[in-house]
Amino acid sequence: MRTGIATVCLSGTLEDKLAAAAHAGFDGVEVFEPDLIGSRLSPSEIRIQAAELGLSIDLYQPFRDFEGVPNRQLERNLRRAEAKFDVVEALGADTMLVCSNVSDETIDDDGLAAQQLHALADRAAERGIRVAYEALAWGRRVSEYDHAWRIVQAVDHPALGICLDSFHILSRGTNLAAIADIPADKLFFVQLADAPHLVMDVLQWSRHYRSFPGQGGFDLSDFTARVLDAGYAGPLSLEVFNDVFRQADPRRMAIDAMRSLLTLEESVRAGSSRRLPPPASLHGYAFVELAVDPASVGETQRLMHAMGFAQTAQHRSKPVALWQQRDARILLNAGAPTAPGIAAIAVESADPGRSAARAEALLAPVLSRQRGPDEADLSAIAAPDGTSVFFCRTDERSDMRGWLQDFDPLSPIGRAASTGLTHIDHVALAQPFDYFDEAALFYRSMLGLEPRESLELAAPDGLVRSRAVTTADGRVRLVLTVPVLAHDAAQAGGLQHVAVACGDIFLVAQRMRERGVGPLSIPDNYYDDLAARLDLEPDLIELMREHDVLYDRARGGEFLHFYTPTVGERLFFEVVERRGDYDGYGAANAPVRMTAQRAPATATEAAFAHERAQATPAEREGDGAYNAA
Amino acid sequence: MRTGIATVCLSGTLEDKLAAAAHAGFDGVEVFEPDLIGSRLSPSEIRIQAAELGLSIDLYQPFRDFEGVPNRQLERNLRRAEAKFDVVEALGADTMLVCSNVSDETIDDDGLAAQQLHALADRAAERGIRVAYEALAWGRRVSEYDHAWRIVQAVDHPALGICLDSFHILSRGTNLAAIADIPADKLFFVQLADAPHLVMDVLQWSRHYRSFPGQGGFDLSDFTARVLDAGYAGPLSLEVFNDVFRQADPRRMAIDAMRSLLTLEESVRAGSSRRLPPPASLHGYAFVELAVDPASVGETQRLMHAMGFAQTAQHRSKPVALWQQRDARILLNAGAPTAPGIAAIAVESADPGRSAARAEALLAPVLSRQRGPDEADLSAIAAPDGTSVFFCRTDERSDMRGWLQDFDPLSPIGRAASTGLTHIDHVALAQPFDYFDEAALFYRSMLGLEPRESLELAAPDGLVRSRAVTTADGRVRLVLTVPVLAHDAAQAGGLQHVAVACGDIFLVAQRMRERGVGPLSIPDNYYDDLAARLDLEPDLIELMREHDVLYDRARGGEFLHFYTPTVGERLFFEVVERRGDYDGYGAANAPVRMTAQRAPATATEAAFAHERAQATPAEREGDGAYNAA
Repeated sequence: MRTGIATVCLSGTLEDKLAAAAHAGFDGVEVFEPDLIGSRLSPSEIRIQAAELGLSIDLYQPFRDFEGVPNRQLERNLRRAEAKFDVVEALGADTMLVCSNVSDETIDDDGLAAQQLHALADRAAERGIRVAYEALAWGRRVSEYDHAWRIVQAVDHPALGICLDSFHILSRGTNLAAIADIPADKLFFVQLADAPHLVMDVLQWSRHYRSFPGQGGFDLSDFTARVLDAGYAGPLSLEVFNDVFRQADPRRMAIDAMRSLLTLEESVRAGSSRRLPPPASLHGYAFVELAVDPASVGETQRLMHAMGFAQTAQHRSKPVALWQQRDARILLNAGAPTAPGIAAIAVESADPGRSAARAEALLAPVLSRQRGPDEADLSAIAAPDGTSVFFCRTDERSDMRGWLQDFDPLSPIGRAASTGLTHIDHVALAQPFDYFDEAALFYRSMLGLEPRESLELAAPDGLVRSRAVTTADGRVRLVLTVPVLAHDAAQAGGLQHVAVACGDIFLVAQRMRERGVGPLSIPDNYYDDLAARLDLEPDLIELMREHDVLYDRARGGEFLHFYTPTVGERLFFEVVERRGDYDGYGAANAPVRMTAQRAPATATEAAFAHERAQATPAEREGDGAYNAA
Repeated sequence: MRTGIATVCLSGTLEDKLAAAAHAGFDGVEVFEPDLIGSRLSPSEIRIQAAELGLSIDLYQPFRDFEGVPNRQLERNLRRAEAKFDVVEALGADTMLVCSNVSDETIDDDGLAAQQLHALADRAAERGIRVAYEALAWGRRVSEYDHAWRIVQAVDHPALGICLDSFHILSRGTNLAAIADIPADKLFFVQLADAPHLVMDVLQWSRHYRSFPGQGGFDLSDFTARVLDAGYAGPLSLEVFNDVFRQADPRRMAIDAMRSLLTLEESVRAGSSRRLPPPASLHGYAFVELAVDPASVGETQRLMHAMGFAQTAQHRSKPVALWQQRDARILLNAGAPTAPGIAAIAVESADPGRSAARAEALLAPVLSRQRGPDEADLSAIAAPDGTSVFFCRTDERSDMRGWLQDFDPLSPIGRAASTGLTHIDHVALAQPFDYFDEAALFYRSMLGLEPRESLELAAPDGLVRSRAVTTADGRVRLVLTVPVLAHDAAQAGGLQHVAVACGDIFLVAQRMRERGVGPLSIPDNYYDDLAARLDLEPDLIELMREHDVLYDRARGGEFLHFYTPTVGERLFFEVVERRGDYDGYGAANAPVRMTAQRAPATATEAAFAHERAQATPAEREGDGAYNAA
């Protein structure tokens, strides 16, 4: 499968775009006309630069508003085409895209359109150029691919074929069966784009919200399988207009684009030549590593102690402590080079080596780490938000060194009793605005997690988008959040949190309060509304009110949860109790939580804030346990 | 006219929202339920806080999915309503909004809906509360205001009336004639929102893209006149869901909101009690003031000299020089406290005092300035992007001190000849992302400028929105630009430019080149495309290519323009020649310009960049001429 990308997908000058496409390993590019017009490079210089980068130029596009015009205008249009054929020739491309006429004056006469396209194909043939005719979803007379194909059939000229663009076809919901009727030698070009399902003007949808395959809601696998089954052997070329991608780092976007094609290829034909190692099954979190700075280490330890975690081990060579309660393991790293917060997540993989190999094949940044002699060699990759992702097996099998063996156990003397926390339920990570789609695809493709519905939450300082990605069985759950709009105010990284599961949330809240750290205070108005909305036992509501526990229900299941005060600048914990088949995250309660977090209300919250303000900033030293420089 | 604003319009906690509404002078607020639920204040504490701020609470909203339900559900809904009546009562509000049911299970039976609303009105009446029924544009059975009104008529209960929301009505294009049929005592509440014309799902349009009156495309004057003519005497209350406003500074947004209501009131009834001074007519630019820093003062002077400007005067007490050519006047201020770039624009007003009085009545920040004895007392306001706006009369009438008299003329010895520049054509100002709508309304209401079409331009690092605001005669033209999306990378303030008009653009370019500063270099590909697209004389195209002049045409007129290299970090000039009735700004050429600006290509551009890199940074001293601390 040859891969291609249109220059419009990427930001920067044409030189930047070509370099990014080559760096990500694309075979070729489509040159988007405005990128060429704005470039200081002449078409033949572009040809040379692409060739030096190992890129072919597969298409020049778009040529607009050609067919279905009064014949007096045809000559004018042909002259315009000849000028563009000069460009195509100088670029060393062999194909020019002609998209269906969008002018209101277009004449509704397929015979006329065919006649004029025949004239164009004649001119193209003289230059050794092919013309690929594409139906735009908003074409004035021709807006469906099968209509465009009937015209191409009528023209019956070797230099005229068809271009299929997945967006234009899938956005209209056109039946795909007719793709099979198009002979392979008439399938001149295929452009791929996904998009979220939106109910809006199709032109605006196309120009602003396209995404790479796997990032939207279209079935690109089915579409791609059909064009390959029809015998198409040209490049699968991405053409994505997206407001965010246009402003993001082009190298990063090009890699994201290539990752989407690799994942698509895997879904279309298992066992193809590139053969990605299949994802290994994941069985939960091995640990979450928190980077703590001197100003917040005390409060973090106090909070973890109150939650019933105990420090059970110390890393042999690094300033890293393991705090544990049942299967919930938190590493506190006082020497991490990253900003305070969640520095790493580690998932239990059935085959860590294969997980890492798959990630590498999918172009994930692989992290090299410093480790002492005899310390475990954990495979790690960097996620789009900078968090490290480790693949582990926390077991005691003698034939492999588990990560736990890098830690010296501590004596259990004097430890506080457990509060009944059992394991890490989910981790919520704030994402950079420009890379949210990248992140969702990253976790989907690397770890085999499935994205759930995207939600919008009204925080007091703006809307927040939230999207969970999880294993099918829910044992690994991640929640990705991002502001719906970036804005003027310099944005902090956003809050992060670790949610820990329990079997009796009121017991946890009670024991925590006894140890001096109560949950985040929730307003009475919340409970009054709950009582008005839902037929809950008044006793239950009063118990929740007493313990600042929030409530949600769906699918016959229930979700009870509370939040801890924030430690440091951006980290807090959540304690959750899932009852029955509840599979969500209490998103409806998030705005209440975000408002409550704006101003400390309880004594503990105020004390933590005060402690932070008093702490003497100090240089952080050393490096991390599993998050080294 | 009483004014109101829904708390959902503003960001922050409920306390922040109330404070902002009071600060902007609103009479009352609508409390939006999620704001109350998330608040630590009880309803009666909210009542007290609002009262202390001088705000009435006019409405509690929304109460959803009440009517048209199976009767077994009615009791449940009435209990829910009673709980909310408790809130309304504690808030000291007298009205609760009930919006039409959106549930798919809603029964299509107006009689049933009327019967159930009657039961609700009975309960409300017992508490002394009124229920205002509103048709949501996406209501399942009731989506038009006249349908809601028929149901309210059928109920015929003193505690049930109607709420009219301009968005729900204007977004559907419903005929407004029936508003006149509603008796005043049944018009319980009126909510105002504008919105740009968008073709999309109406719920998404409503929840994300509403704006304050005058910022969108609806005719709010007509709508408001109709409800006032029908005898409505309650508050005109803004209810705007907008993704940007939700994250912006609430005090600033509340002032923007109040400004929109003042402007709306003026358009609805001339001579009303608040009586804004009408805008004075504007006759062009008096001057543009540039703040220059030591690193770029040399290149700025060199550029202005090359453009044919001469330093004609020096401010008597400040480090400010006047550079002039015909009616184009530029102040170079080496002591401005602002960042380098356009510090101020000054417009010629027929009545500067009235212009300033109007601005003050419209809540513009009025600038106090330091000035020497006998220096002109210019009225100035701060625009949303921080630029100062002065109102001047540049004339020699003896009875008023003109600003020119603060300058000592310099001898004309040795000045370079003019290049034929005549006046300032327009000024382009980059706007902060969160305040673009505010800026457009600001210029419209303060200066009486009319906004033109909003355009999207594809810059190499993302899409840019551009919108001109101009006097009807085009003598004062401003172009406001903003990124379509803010993004992760810290955004510089964006480029600004001053466009100067001439009668012969090739002569200007020629003379500038002779003086060593050529225009911004434009790629050959641009001219090849121009030749392919348009039937222009080949000689003209070659002349434009030689001089890096760009071309546009519309309405039978033509626009020829070129750009200078950038001086400092963010400022450049444009030279324009308007031929015939051309009224635009060559927007189609902006992407080519923005790409060309990414990397210096000519010797001058490179020299300027080098000079900047070499210059020793120095402290800026002193204060401005007309832009003082």
